[in-house]
Amino acid sequence: MSFIIDWERESRTGTAEAVLCDGKLIEDIDAIVAHARGRRLLLTRLTKEQFGALSAENRAALQYDALSRTAILGRVAPATLPTVAIVSAGTADRPIAAEAARTLAFAGHSASMITDVGVAGLWRLTARVDEIAAHPVVIAVAGMEGALFSVLAGLIDAPIIALPTARGYGVAEGGKAALSSALASCAPGLVTVNIDNGFGAACAAIRILRRSSASG
Amino acid sequence: MSFIIDWERESRTGTAEAVLCDGKLIEDIDAIVAHARGRRLLLTRLTKEQFGALSAENRAALQYDALSRTAILGRVAPATLPTVAIVSAGTADRPIAAEAARTLAFAGHSASMITDVGVAGLWRLTARVDEIAAHPVVIAVAGMEGALFSVLAGLIDAPIIALPTARGYGVAEGGKAALSSALASCAPGLVTVNIDNGFGAACAAIRILRRSSASG
Amino acid sequence: MSFIIDWERESRTGTAEAVLCDGKLIEDIDAIVAHARGRRLLLTRLTKEQFGALSAENRAALQYDALSRTAILGRVAPATLPTVAIVSAGTADRPIAAEAARTLAFAGHSASMITDVGVAGLWRLTARVDEIAAHPVVIAVAGMEGALFSVLAGLIDAPIIALPTARGYGVAEGGKAALSSALASCAPGLVTVNIDNGFGAACAAIRILRRSSASG
Amino acid sequence: MSFIIDWERESRTGTAEAVLCDGKLIEDIDAIVAHARGRRLLLTRLTKEQFGALSAENRAALQYDALSRTAILGRVAPATLPTVAIVSAGTADRPIAAEAARTLAFAGHSASMITDVGVAGLWRLTARVDEIAAHPVVIAVAGMEGALFSVLAGLIDAPIIALPTARGYGVAEGGKAALSSALASCAPGLVTVNIDNGFGAACAAIRILRRSSASG
Amino acid sequence: MSFIIDWERESRTGTAEAVLCDGKLIEDIDAIVAHARGRRLLLTRLTKEQFGALSAENRAALQYDALSRTAILGRVAPATLPTVAIVSAGTADRPIAAEAARTLAFAGHSASMITDVGVAGLWRLTARVDEIAAHPVVIAVAGMEGALFSVLAGLIDAPIIALPTARGYGVAEGGKAALSSALASCAPGLVTVNIDNGFGAACAAIRILRRSSASG
Amino acid sequence: MSFIIDWERESRTGTAEAVLCDGKLIEDIDAIVAHARGRRLLLTRLTKEQFGALSAENRAALQYDALSRTAILGRVAPATLPTVAIVSAGTADRPIAAEAARTLAFAGHSASMITDVGVAGLWRLTARVDEIAAHPVVIAVAGMEGALFSVLAGLIDAPIIALPTARGYGVAEGGKAALSSALASCAPGLVTVNIDNGFGAACAAIRILRRSSASG
Amino acid sequence: MSFIIDWERESRTGTAEAVLCDGKLIEDIDAIVAHARGRRLLLTRLTKEQFGALSAENRAALQYDALSRTAILGRVAPATLPTVAIVSAGTADRPIAAEAARTLAFAGHSASMITDVGVAGLWRLTARVDEIAAHPVVIAVAGMEGALFSVLAGLIDAPIIALPTARGYGVAEGGKAALSSALASCAPGLVTVNIDNGFGAACAAIRILRRSSASG
Amino acid sequence: MSFIIDWERESRTGTAEAVLCDGKLIEDIDAIVAHARGRRLLLTRLTKEQFGALSAENRAALQYDALSRTAILGRVAPATLPTVAIVSAGTADRPIAAEAARTLAFAGHSASMITDVGVAGLWRLTARVDEIAAHPVVIAVAGMEGALFSVLAGLIDAPIIALPTARGYGVAEGGKAALSSALASCAPGLVTVNIDNGFGAACAAIRILRRSSASG
Repeated sequence: MSFIIDWERESRTGTAEAVLCDGKLIEDIDAIVAHARGRRLLLTRLTKEQFGALSAENRAALQYDALSRTAILGRVAPATLPTVAIVSAGTADRPIAAEAARTLAFAGHSASMITDVGVAGLWRLTARVDEIAAHPVVIAVAGMEGALFSVLAGLIDAPIIALPTARGYGVAEGGKAALSSALASCAPGLVTVNIDNGFGAACAAIRILRRSSASG
Repeated sequence: MSFIIDWERESRTGTAEAVLCDGKLIEDIDAIVAHARGRRLLLTRLTKEQFGALSAENRAALQYDALSRTAILGRVAPATLPTVAIVSAGTADRPIAAEAARTLAFAGHSASMITDVGVAGLWRLTARVDEIAAHPVVIAVAGMEGALFSVLAGLIDAPIIALPTARGYGVAEGGKAALSSALASCAPGLVTVNIDNGFGAACAAIRILRRSSASG
Repeated sequence: MSFIIDWERESRTGTAEAVLCDGKLIEDIDAIVAHARGRRLLLTRLTKEQFGALSAENRAALQYDALSRTAILGRVAPATLPTVAIVSAGTADRPIAAEAARTLAFAGHSASMITDVGVAGLWRLTARVDEIAAHPVVIAVAGMEGALFSVLAGLIDAPIIALPTARGYGVAEGGKAALSSALASCAPGLVTVNIDNGFGAACAAIRILRRSSASG
Repeated sequence: MSFIIDWERESRTGTAEAVLCDGKLIEDIDAIVAHARGRRLLLTRLTKEQFGALSAENRAALQYDALSRTAILGRVAPATLPTVAIVSAGTADRPIAAEAARTLAFAGHSASMITDVGVAGLWRLTARVDEIAAHPVVIAVAGMEGALFSVLAGLIDAPIIALPTARGYGVAEGGKAALSSALASCAPGLVTVNIDNGFGAACAAIRILRRSSASG
Repeated sequence: MSFIIDWERESRTGTAEAVLCDGKLIEDIDAIVAHARGRRLLLTRLTKEQFGALSAENRAALQYDALSRTAILGRVAPATLPTVAIVSAGTADRPIAAEAARTLAFAGHSASMITDVGVAGLWRLTARVDEIAAHPVVIAVAGMEGALFSVLAGLIDAPIIALPTARGYGVAEGGKAALSSALASCAPGLVTVNIDNGFGAACAAIRILRRSSASG
Repeated sequence: MSFIIDWERESRTGTAEAVLCDGKLIEDIDAIVAHARGRRLLLTRLTKEQFGALSAENRAALQYDALSRTAILGRVAPATLPTVAIVSAGTADRPIAAEAARTLAFAGHSASMITDVGVAGLWRLTARVDEIAAHPVVIAVAGMEGALFSVLAGLIDAPIIALPTARGYGVAEGGKAALSSALASCAPGLVTVNIDNGFGAACAAIRILRRSSASG
Repeated sequence: MSFIIDWERESRTGTAEAVLCDGKLIEDIDAIVAHARGRRLLLTRLTKEQFGALSAENRAALQYDALSRTAILGRVAPATLPTVAIVSAGTADRPIAAEAARTLAFAGHSASMITDVGVAGLWRLTARVDEIAAHPVVIAVAGMEGALFSVLAGLIDAPIIALPTARGYGVAEGGKAALSSALASCAPGLVTVNIDNGFGAACAAIRILRRSSASG
Repeated sequence: MSFIIDWERESRTGTAEAVLCDGKLIEDIDAIVAHARGRRLLLTRLTKEQFGALSAENRAALQYDALSRTAILGRVAPATLPTVAIVSAGTADRPIAAEAARTLAFAGHSASMITDVGVAGLWRLTARVDEIAAHPVVIAVAGMEGALFSVLAGLIDAPIIALPTARGYGVAEGGKAALSSALASCAPGLVTVNIDNGFGAACAAIRILRRSSASG
């Protein structure tokens, strides 16, 4: 078995090669990391159990972060590119917000984490609108009913990427209610990614920022 | 064929007998109204086409309202009971809000209609929070993503009944997204009725108000 | 990381601050409880495993109840406010009914537990209708097909909050059938909360009772 | 094009050949009826528009009933076989109940129509339980939340066939909520057929009655 | 906590009291069995783990069967009542078929188990049609696409109860495809129960057989 | 506006260019046909209303077939390639079966139409198995519960393409039950296309036959 | 009844006020337009029938476009802002692509329409990749299975907004399959809006472009 | 209990008897294998845990492959029949691709594994199109959004069988998005099997190849 890593992806699509580890066999992840040694690579959805089962060499080569379930092979450069605001409704959304932040860091962007600003206590959100609006791109993270997406999109004019999470139970189970809220939003110009896709939300932000810099 | 109208329902459950006309044959509606003559009856979801097809006698006996698709047989007493706030996010929700208002009027309650306060323009809502909070019961009407429900429930402490509407398209079609938002809300103490069920929301408000008066 | 507990929520919305522990990391729950020390706080959906993993200090400070999966920080005052009837169809619904009862207790209300009155043995329910009807608010708890909601709403005139549970298998799995029954009910004035949301049902009852007292 | 009518079905499965007209072309229905002339045939879901478009000869040969949307070719014998109780919750269910009754009549069974006994007014149902229980088989017809199925199955010991109807809106639209209630019922021994399948419910009743007679 | 066992159910609905153990707490099952001592009771969906955790006294009093996950309290009389044919498509359906058989045995009926007659090898089924047709009631058990239901209902004229099982993956996961096949069947007179509801299918058979005997 | 017709598709993928007219504007269909004059083109899902609204020139140039809702521009060569068996369960499936047959004819294949062989009358199907098995490829057309797919795939060894149709109501509405049956089939080697996709089923048959000829 | 038009929205969120006419009453649209006279306003999802029913004055004041179902009140400035590439897979997607283009034009942006580049004829798309990549933002429009989204996002590095359309039948009906493809895409950085939401896709593009200019 | 293995299936349908072990009891699998000793049999979806629990004799008699979760009883002949191309989008699809390959090997066909050619890096796929097109049948394996199916079907003219996998999360969970893409594909002539049904895809390929050889 041989792997073809898409080393040209970064120049072509603006985001470096990443490997989704969810559902992959340990032997396959080990082979991919070994093959990529000497280059930079981001591994996402790598559980603690999966990381612990990798070869000792690979574990040593990777910088693993348990909260975001990501690992980075190679150097993480200091963040010199624009900062993205990651706004989240609840503490249970932290792992997903962290996946977005880690992906941004891998690409040289830092993130401002603005947490616990759910709409049930609206003043917590409105108190920080100016701070949020000062960022060139905003990622909004919410589970349950996802009302944060519409409220925020009505308050600021920056590009906003909704990142629905699987948090919730009953009709909210698996994140479907939050995703529906993002898609059905009455606030114009809101876009969304798949449930729990922190990596994708960050990549979308990177696409937007790269283009802004280029066209500036 | 004979009909059994539940004349004792009002004393037993606090809401007078009503007839849902959706899906009923014209001959059946005509028979029910004829049978009920001399008493009070509320007909809901009676389309213009259905009303126009009723017997001349029945049409004359009924007070029909096209917006709310309701008809009332018998006297509508002046509203002397407490007033309910009906808060809606968009003008397209007017027919459903009107069904709730008409049901309340039939039971002797008036309604304050507070319209066009969707969350995409949050200041429109916050500007009227005190006015809304002054009512003993609030019915919140919204389609699309239904973010209004959570925002409002986080701002006031009155009982709030979410009334999701079928307004929307794509994932919002048929009102499922708005209903999910009401059920999955992060704001504690929000309750909901079925999509487009203005009659039911009003009946719930009446149950609450009747009990309040009784226990006062 | 810092948490913003919404200490003003009680005065604003009538329900004290509560923390949904489902999906939260142990370190986050520990931090929240430590931060809240000296105040009152309700923790919901806190599993035995989660509780056991908290710091010894926090475990000592919390009054944990395994059946309802709730923990209370601070004093539980004697119940002096009106009593809510919690009517349930089966013994498997006990944990959810208990979550509602614990939430009520935290707010100073007691609950009358009326259990095992499913509609398959109708006489068990009709025998206790008068007892149920004597309460100012009723919470009806049922899984499976949720027929209890409509039957009960047709028998009494108090406000009734349906609390569907995830009990059941096949088409009833996850509580969707019971929730649909609550929403589609032919009994006017029934309202519902999300599946297994005992906390929310209790908060809705508290909103109704608070307002009744106020307006009395 | 030639049709193969299954003339032996009656002896093999206990129900005579029937033709579902829903979705069929007029020319096909015309050909089937012409081909079947001289024999007995039941046509179901034949709309007024379809019936009106058939050839004059076929229209003359058929006994059409608009309420049940059925037509019968050939003789309808006087009902000499046992009578089935058809219990329905609302007047809007009449067309589906009528389809069941017409199918029974075609097979020589009469039906007792017991209407308007929805559970929202429970006394209407309990007042007639003895009358219902006197029948060897019961068909229960209900839309909306379908609570009638469970209540009735808990009160009598005859075989009960649930016949959910498409009546309702929101989550009840298309009859899914009523069907779920029938399947998820907590009352043991309830069986169901597809939504609006009055023909199928009657055929099931015929299977049961035929066997009872045979084994008697 | 006290339980109300419905001891009169058998005379009223034709099936003895049974307790669904799925989702119940061990302490509740223990209390129910202790309370019922001296009477007959059927426990369904009692897993090996649950049975093992019951009190020693209760374990000794119960006749447990691991395959069907049922336990019987009290005497199982010799089967003297008519025999039901339980026809199943695959060996993976055995536990559900066994639940139906155990429920029948508890009520005094024996069952003929006719297994491995799926439609993919049609001759296996047609070879046994006469044997199946000799029974007064047939329960057909199938997962996957559930084609067995329609084929069998087209071959015999006895009452047939479809019992869809959760066997399958992809679109068949959880039994939805098999259930849809039972409901959408083109074979007239087929009825169905919920997915994996072997208890319910048996109770329906008992209702049919009891009535047949009575009316014979 | 200019259109790019993919004239090389036939050599590349084995099927000539076709235009799905469903949802297209009349002006667009008119422009496509005018642009394609002098070449061969298949138009599918072209309703009578759409065809009637086309320009007179285009109507004259097209060979329209109302049953299959297809139109052919250019010559239909005599069928000299292998014949496909199109087996259907009911007369209501004729339009979809006809779309498949017309697509085959456009590509030079004829079709044997074997109709009304639904599984509810199994002998109708088994009587024709040898005739069906004599064809190199079989398309099986069925709505409702789609049991035909599994039964047929268990009887013959030719490639079988399931073509589920939208025929049915209740849970069968829109063809979902038939599609699920095709996918969940216990008969190995059955493949399926989308609901009502007669064009696609025929194209798959053409791919198989072309390759067979080539490799022969 | 009075309307509150959100005239400050443009400065706050970067998109001028627009009115979704879907589901609104004619009298309400007439009132909104009359109220807005002298200002700029975009009306979306205004059908020909709705436009024809407006008052003569309003019809005269509006610039209506039937293809996109949009009307503009007030001046449309010449497009001087950056151009967006609108890439679509089929001619049936034209109305939705046109809604996006009209919204952009209202805001001062022009659009490059690149049509008929579905993935079934991949060379049609690859031939135009450089042309597409030259735009600062790309809107990709596709119904059916929506494979265009992933392919395009893998080829270029600009921000890409997926705009799924309701085109398709069977499992594609209503656009759910295309929406799922956009959300589940393996191509990093793809974002999506609701089905058929051409207005929303354009507003998202405007947010991105405005910010780029500002930060340039 | 006795099992009827369908030994004639191979001659009748072109695929040897196989046993789906998913959901079967260990004792049943043991009995089946013991019964089949001396003949050839393929066991699918046999987990490592299940295999480990079989009797020592059976374990010794079976050739188990953990990746594909298959076991073969009896001889695997050298592959002398045509080779199938199995094209997959990601390494996480390897187990499902392997199930297809093992099924082909059991029937005497070899497979060319062409991996990691997802559409997000289109050049990886186009570089190998000629190699893929040289095979008489292609199985395309993909999870997530399944765009590979349409792209590949537009590039080659061989029969293509889509094999959607359960890989993915959010809306892709369980493989529904990939399956929808296969069914809704705009590329003509694509067929699909159930999610994760590697066995079925291989059996379909065998049907096609057998017929090709026969008719050559």
